[in-house]
Amino acid sequence: MSAKNLQDVLDAAGSTVELLRSSTLGTYIYPVVPAEFTNFRREAKAWRNTAVLFDQSHHMVNLFVSGKDALRLLTDTGINSTATFPVDTAKQFVPVSPEGGVIGDGILFRDAEDEFTFVGRAPVANWLTYQAQQGYDVDVRRDERSPSRPYGRAVTRELWRFQIQGPNAWPVIEKLNGAPVEQVKFFRMGRMRIAGLEVRTLRHGMAGAPGLEIWGPYETYDAVRDAILEAGAEFGLEPSGSRAYSCNTFESGWIPSPLPAVYTSDELKAYREWLPADGYEATNALAGSYVSSDIRDYYLNPWELGYGSFVKFDHDFIGRDALQAVVPAEQRRKVTLAWNAEDLGEILASPLAPEPGAQWFDLPNANYGSSNYDAVLDGDGHQVGLSLFTGYSPNERTGLSLATVDPGVPVGAEVRVVWGEPDGGSAKTTVEPHEQVSVRAVVSPAPYSKVARESYQAGWRTAGAR
Amino acid sequence: MSAKNLQDVLDAAGSTVELLRSSTLGTYIYPVVPAEFTNFRREAKAWRNTAVLFDQSHHMVNLFVSGKDALRLLTDTGINSTATFPVDTAKQFVPVSPEGGVIGDGILFRDAEDEFTFVGRAPVANWLTYQAQQGYDVDVRRDERSPSRPYGRAVTRELWRFQIQGPNAWPVIEKLNGAPVEQVKFFRMGRMRIAGLEVRTLRHGMAGAPGLEIWGPYETYDAVRDAILEAGAEFGLEPSGSRAYSCNTFESGWIPSPLPAVYTSDELKAYREWLPADGYEATNALAGSYVSSDIRDYYLNPWELGYGSFVKFDHDFIGRDALQAVVPAEQRRKVTLAWNAEDLGEILASPLAPEPGAQWFDLPNANYGSSNYDAVLDGDGHQVGLSLFTGYSPNERTGLSLATVDPGVPVGAEVRVVWGEPDGGSAKTTVEPHEQVSVRAVVSPAPYSKVARESYQAGWRTAGAR
Repeated sequence: MSAKNLQDVLDAAGSTVELLRSSTLGTYIYPVVPAEFTNFRREAKAWRNTAVLFDQSHHMVNLFVSGKDALRLLTDTGINSTATFPVDTAKQFVPVSPEGGVIGDGILFRDAEDEFTFVGRAPVANWLTYQAQQGYDVDVRRDERSPSRPYGRAVTRELWRFQIQGPNAWPVIEKLNGAPVEQVKFFRMGRMRIAGLEVRTLRHGMAGAPGLEIWGPYETYDAVRDAILEAGAEFGLEPSGSRAYSCNTFESGWIPSPLPAVYTSDELKAYREWLPADGYEATNALAGSYVSSDIRDYYLNPWELGYGSFVKFDHDFIGRDALQAVVPAEQRRKVTLAWNAEDLGEILASPLAPEPGAQWFDLPNANYGSSNYDAVLDGDGHQVGLSLFTGYSPNERTGLSLATVDPGVPVGAEVRVVWGEPDGGSAKTTVEPHEQVSVRAVVSPAPYSKVARESYQAGWRTAGAR
Repeated sequence: MSAKNLQDVLDAAGSTVELLRSSTLGTYIYPVVPAEFTNFRREAKAWRNTAVLFDQSHHMVNLFVSGKDALRLLTDTGINSTATFPVDTAKQFVPVSPEGGVIGDGILFRDAEDEFTFVGRAPVANWLTYQAQQGYDVDVRRDERSPSRPYGRAVTRELWRFQIQGPNAWPVIEKLNGAPVEQVKFFRMGRMRIAGLEVRTLRHGMAGAPGLEIWGPYETYDAVRDAILEAGAEFGLEPSGSRAYSCNTFESGWIPSPLPAVYTSDELKAYREWLPADGYEATNALAGSYVSSDIRDYYLNPWELGYGSFVKFDHDFIGRDALQAVVPAEQRRKVTLAWNAEDLGEILASPLAPEPGAQWFDLPNANYGSSNYDAVLDGDGHQVGLSLFTGYSPNERTGLSLATVDPGVPVGAEVRVVWGEPDGGSAKTTVEPHEQVSVRAVVSPAPYSKVARESYQAGWRTAGAR
């Protein structure tokens, strides 16, 4: 009998870890948007030096939640406080499981008193869709992520979604609007005009410079995009392809891909029976050197992902009890790891060496699963963290990964990331037989800034020989 | 006054070399087909070890030529003899300019007595379309290459075009057909059944194993593709994405991208006035370390590309006089260059070094223009050839390029390829400021097979120190 839902899949698999580590879904794809317009190095330099147009129209789900219980639904499911949540503001919304593990995160827009839009990966959209059916007077409508391989078929969305970012973003925005645009606070929404159309805006920013996320009906995609590129040309604005887009987070420090913590809680059995047998939760590929037999070891709590400050016990919410039992000071914290150039250089040259060589490190995005978990070790080989999103920053000319490390690991410490999977690698379609490689890396802030490796004798244990 | 045609563009530019070296078109894109289904290394291994499904539906022009003068048109424009050209056979068709330079090449199918299909890049399709208007009683219909960046818009073609290749190709083919399929000679056409549909076939092959190119109406694309993947599963057949597809030629030895030799001949002025100002000839990007002020130095004759055996003086054709003046034994010949792993490894690790570093070497296809011309030098720094198509073979685990070298350069000789452009690089959108790198390479056969570097003292001059 074939599996009807996620719970069936898990029951049949026995080991959830093995199931997800063997997924044949492949890596996470940023669809439809061309890989490159010029080249991804140039496009990345644009967000640091001039301005960039990101196209976020295709890789995320839009979930439209409306109705008199909409705010209650979101309050009951989010770690975030909704005590202050005016119309025309947004929050980085984070729901957790009853066990306290993060299910995912994304941007939650309050469009009107009883109207919200969540934008992010599928796990949170799925969770909210399910919770909405548990006694809330709400309407939920989904605008699904575009197919990963459209193969020439037409793709449309309800909305296009762009960001105009970089040091020259604001002059481009005001030129488009034909008038000054107020630099409201971060995550405040507004409106502006582009190509004679009114579009919605969210105050955003990158590398310290103000920018906007903007969105509107998909039918106006071409008109708006063309107008932005035309207006931006004199300011050095470049369109960013999917290759450059996927590596902006190494500099900005957002971890896109925690494993949704929904596989184990008894209270979530009904949810797992509701989730499909072929959805994100059942098929997402778990990749990397970190392997535990217990899927719960992959769960991440809000502090480990840098969302500790979002946790507000001013309201009841699913997972509240679990989070109240957490001692924040004892949690791992989010950092950037700056990979040693010599060690990474050997990995990049490894395709030229005899088989098996290292696991492929694609540039600029080296992840080979939906959720990526590499072990971070200290010099003695003890695990001190997890490296969760790995690639290359053309601006820093450095391999970077976003990680969570033990509280005792200081900035400047040299750690080691184990790149590649044990035992020659898993059955994932993104994996060829390979050998693991230990890579030195310097613990650095997130968002990234370069720090010197600490070398003092009496300080934190250094990595020593590889 | 804006340019109306290619001749206007050339007149306005002054230097054709500078025009094309500064093109902002970007690199040659293999559109619509997903980049990877699993990963390009695995997909490449499939054509060597099991079987592969190539999807050639989107990156080439189909030109349908019919009518009572069709054969005469093709005879008058091709170096190939048409004395023997039965219906249901194909030829690798090569037209040259009056100066003897290759305009391009592609496959010419004889579908019926007066019906032909040419499949290849735009320059030959353009040339035939123009020549057809010079007094031939023919109909010409074009099915244009798919857009490079469809951006979610629907893409269709008249035909899909696949290849089933690899050591297990024939069992897959016979299983699909439900009966034996005769292994006719190379480039003979036939018919087979797939998913209840009759499709056309061309006997092809790869790495010594028989395979088929197949095609049919685009409406049957899904049905045929699904049937092939299903039938092929037990034989290890894998669909090949565009990344793997673009590197199969490093092993098979076909040079896809000669610069069309149409820019200079006085006799072609009317053709250049007919060609558009924004077509392939006007916008294709000329890339690489080889720079001459004279665009004619980029022209390649049939011998230099390995097509010397196609030249048949049994008929009159455009360029015949020029080719008759050529001494074949004195021409450069096609070879594969096997790049030194140490030198290429440094290029691959160069993004981690301080700016400017080397020109980006993308894997597996490192070309950064439509036509790629890198200088090949001997140990004394004298130019002995041109390297024309560069990348990486996952099967050989080696950087390979297809090149043409002086007749005196033996297989096994160590030469040097200059990677990257002079003076920090051109204005192409695929180029960031960089430094040139000299890469050792061993002259090898095309199609590629590994040879030892010759190291004898008294033999051909070796490259010596870099």
